[in-house]
Amino acid sequence: MDERPEQRLTIRLDLGAGIRVGPGKIALLEAIDTEGSIAGAGRKLKMSYKRAWDLTEELNKSFSDPLIAKSPGGSHGGGAQLTAAGKALVKHYREIEQASHKASQTSLKAVTNLL
Amino acid sequence: MDERPEQRLTIRLDLGAGIRVGPGKIALLEAIDTEGSIAGAGRKLKMSYKRAWDLTEELNKSFSDPLIAKSPGGSHGGGAQLTAAGKALVKHYREIEQASHKASQTSLKAVTNLL
Repeated sequence: MDERPEQRLTIRLDLGAGIRVGPGKIALLEAIDTEGSIAGAGRKLKMSYKRAWDLTEELNKSFSDPLIAKSPGGSHGGGAQLTAAGKALVKHYREIEQASHKASQTSLKAVTNLL
Repeated sequence: MDERPEQRLTIRLDLGAGIRVGPGKIALLEAIDTEGSIAGAGRKLKMSYKRAWDLTEELNKSFSDPLIAKSPGGSHGGGAQLTAAGKALVKHYREIEQASHKASQTSLKAVTNLL
């Protein structure tokens, strides 16, 4: 059969006012959800703690409610969890990704045929 | 009504073997189609001639048939046109973009409500 790896769509949401959400931020939110801390999420994604922290600050400022709830702790300490808004963003992003992929099958196949 | 600019999806196609097609390359192909040259397309997109040229070389190598037909000319000269394959890629990319946007309306609205 076809030995090429499956073709994928990557989605970036441009939400206006410079707010953009793509696969990197969604992966960070998912990693915070599973790891329970920003430091742990950063390690999982091989992202510096500073980079992960800055992205959580950016995400929290971009939406009405914070997406990530941070608990106090020492340096690089303290836990972090997704809020209801954070979980909703991840859920809807993944829905958009799946709906887009499904709706694009015919055209994506046509692109593949050009390879 | 809602004064926010319309939310948009940006699509990147990951086609395997490191071949990626996103809005930048598609804009370049469309500009070559309207401007008739790589230099003209670069000017239109405020992209250096070298950058535009390198992207056309990358695109031409990535697909079975070249996407851009280049005519000989002097330095920065010569015209360029999209081939049938080049036109097909642009067409299918825009189809994917539209189908994805349409299929994602409900979830995209849900994301907007989080802003």
